[in-house]
Amino acid sequence: MASFSYEVIHKDARSSARLGVLHTAHGDIPTPVFMPVGTAGAVKAMPGSWLETLDARVILANTYHLYLRPGHERVQRLGGLHQFMAWSRAILTDSGGYQVFSHRDLRRISEDGVWFKSHLDGSSHFLGPEKAMDIQRALGSDIAMVFDECTPYPCGKIDAQASMELSMRWARRCKDHWMRGSDDSIALFGIVQGGIFPDLRKLSVEKLLDIGFPGMAVGGLSVGEPRDLMHEVLESTVPLLPSDRPRYLMGVGTPDDIIHAVGLGVDMFDCVLPTRNARNGCLFTSEGRILIKNAAYAEDARPLDSKCACMTCRNYSRAYLRHLFMAGEHLSAVLNTLHNLTFYLDMMHKIREAIALNLYVERFELTGNKPE
Amino acid sequence: MASFSYEVIHKDARSSARLGVLHTAHGDIPTPVFMPVGTAGAVKAMPGSWLETLDARVILANTYHLYLRPGHERVQRLGGLHQFMAWSRAILTDSGGYQVFSHRDLRRISEDGVWFKSHLDGSSHFLGPEKAMDIQRALGSDIAMVFDECTPYPCGKIDAQASMELSMRWARRCKDHWMRGSDDSIALFGIVQGGIFPDLRKLSVEKLLDIGFPGMAVGGLSVGEPRDLMHEVLESTVPLLPSDRPRYLMGVGTPDDIIHAVGLGVDMFDCVLPTRNARNGCLFTSEGRILIKNAAYAEDARPLDSKCACMTCRNYSRAYLRHLFMAGEHLSAVLNTLHNLTFYLDMMHKIREAIALNLYVERFELTGNKPE
Repeated sequence: MASFSYEVIHKDARSSARLGVLHTAHGDIPTPVFMPVGTAGAVKAMPGSWLETLDARVILANTYHLYLRPGHERVQRLGGLHQFMAWSRAILTDSGGYQVFSHRDLRRISEDGVWFKSHLDGSSHFLGPEKAMDIQRALGSDIAMVFDECTPYPCGKIDAQASMELSMRWARRCKDHWMRGSDDSIALFGIVQGGIFPDLRKLSVEKLLDIGFPGMAVGGLSVGEPRDLMHEVLESTVPLLPSDRPRYLMGVGTPDDIIHAVGLGVDMFDCVLPTRNARNGCLFTSEGRILIKNAAYAEDARPLDSKCACMTCRNYSRAYLRHLFMAGEHLSAVLNTLHNLTFYLDMMHKIREAIALNLYVERFELTGNKPE
Repeated sequence: MASFSYEVIHKDARSSARLGVLHTAHGDIPTPVFMPVGTAGAVKAMPGSWLETLDARVILANTYHLYLRPGHERVQRLGGLHQFMAWSRAILTDSGGYQVFSHRDLRRISEDGVWFKSHLDGSSHFLGPEKAMDIQRALGSDIAMVFDECTPYPCGKIDAQASMELSMRWARRCKDHWMRGSDDSIALFGIVQGGIFPDLRKLSVEKLLDIGFPGMAVGGLSVGEPRDLMHEVLESTVPLLPSDRPRYLMGVGTPDDIIHAVGLGVDMFDCVLPTRNARNGCLFTSEGRILIKNAAYAEDARPLDSKCACMTCRNYSRAYLRHLFMAGEHLSAVLNTLHNLTFYLDMMHKIREAIALNLYVERFELTGNKPE
């Protein structure tokens, strides 16, 4: 199998945005890229063939969910996650850490790892650095993530430092365990922690560089902190990341957050926002968000977004989409998800085009301060 | 607009099965035909484009549901049901009678019609022959049905006769009201009632023929009676229906029921079975039904049905379909519905082919008694 690599194709003249390509065993991925979230081995309400039509090149799957159901060993016996879900393009898996820590009352942390109770049936499970590696290897993803503690917000500096240092010790163990079993077709990414403290973030980057990873993620953001604070942390952290490796901002975010982070030089994004909002009837359009349940749309014969070419916008009126939502029809989630993912993936396409033309700052109305 | 008509293309040599075409303002429909049920203006979990790919030529929509939500007048203002749901092929609407009568504790019947309470919010509504015609006209369906009382099972002969006679008086009022406002692009079908009593069924047919309808439906079957009894009633009733008009068996049924009825000369069918079963994980295959939740399928890498060419069977394993079902993924309903409707529509295709070749009795293992 082809080994994982990343190359920068072009750097924007007026910002730190860059155009690149991730080469994986399951195809090339132009960056900046948005990864639709396929939690349980399926992007909710989206047939895989539609994802291909949208030119999605990589999706994210959740280790925590797949470990609990159907089980990583079962997926492995069925040929790995690609074959299981009939997805021939790239897959990134998270480490399960985020989900394990988000159920605060269900887990117990030690140096070894985390004991937690399943949200499905309350059964007890252990997840630690080595096991998180084994699970992701069994799933056979193209990009795996180290097991880390997602530092919550708010969090004092002493706790944030202890949490970051635990994550860094775990990152070392992940890498050590990884090296004992994997070929280089799967890339293991490190994750920068350190809360909202620039010096802790810097220390975290240094420790990860010392361990050595082919890609670097920024974790622990978009966890409740004010948006300006998230931007500040990013603005001080991203320039510390090596420019020859892909940079992944985990779990972010809104279109505006993505546009801002791309301007700082971030290459990869994932977020449940387009898919979850779709199921809740919150739809992204070129003229802002639409809450489709609003009575104003009950007899609105216009398409959701006159500038969108997706099947939903080509065929259906806002009135029909509102009706499907109000009636609780399965088709509501299907058509809404198709539209919201089209919106996100089209946006990434426009972002890449603007960078290629050195028009990123102009087209996306950024301030244009190049921080590098 | 083209007027509605029906022609018989070929009669099977060894049974009463026949091949025909329904000509409608929204396309030609080869018969025998199965109509997927699109209750609330959407075939549940099925994108319209997929229905077209499956070569579905006509769907059924429910007057009761669309009257309550989003409202027939709203649908009319939005250009009619075809435009509302972006379906350019034919639509048959029922009259709402079946749903109104099925909520026994929520309705009050009089000669005029039925007062009932909405299952959505408990609000009071009236539906009668004239209003059922007005609603279907507003929806703009291609085939409308008279408003009738669906005689329950069990039901004594005196009650069955009273019920049938009420339905026949209503059928007359439907026709009278229909003639005052509609062009001949929409066909109004009569519905034979009479419970399980052959002489009442015969009387009902005579009354409907006297009123005059371009198509005849058999109602009040598959409402809890034993399967043999349903077949007996059909065997005595269908031969009474005029052979130059389409015959529609409402709400039926299983593949076996359809095969039996086609052999008697029935041309049209609708049933929630393929779509509802799909959502419940009950899947039709060439080797019988599969309950996908069964543990036996947890690591079954085979397609659902190796003889099926649908997207679900081409791409996914039973193990994956089981996982989606167990995880409550939206995609489960989508992929299962696609498969079950493919199964039904493929079966109708094979039925038509067998009739054309005079091989219907042989291929579908019927007894071959031609009752005509």
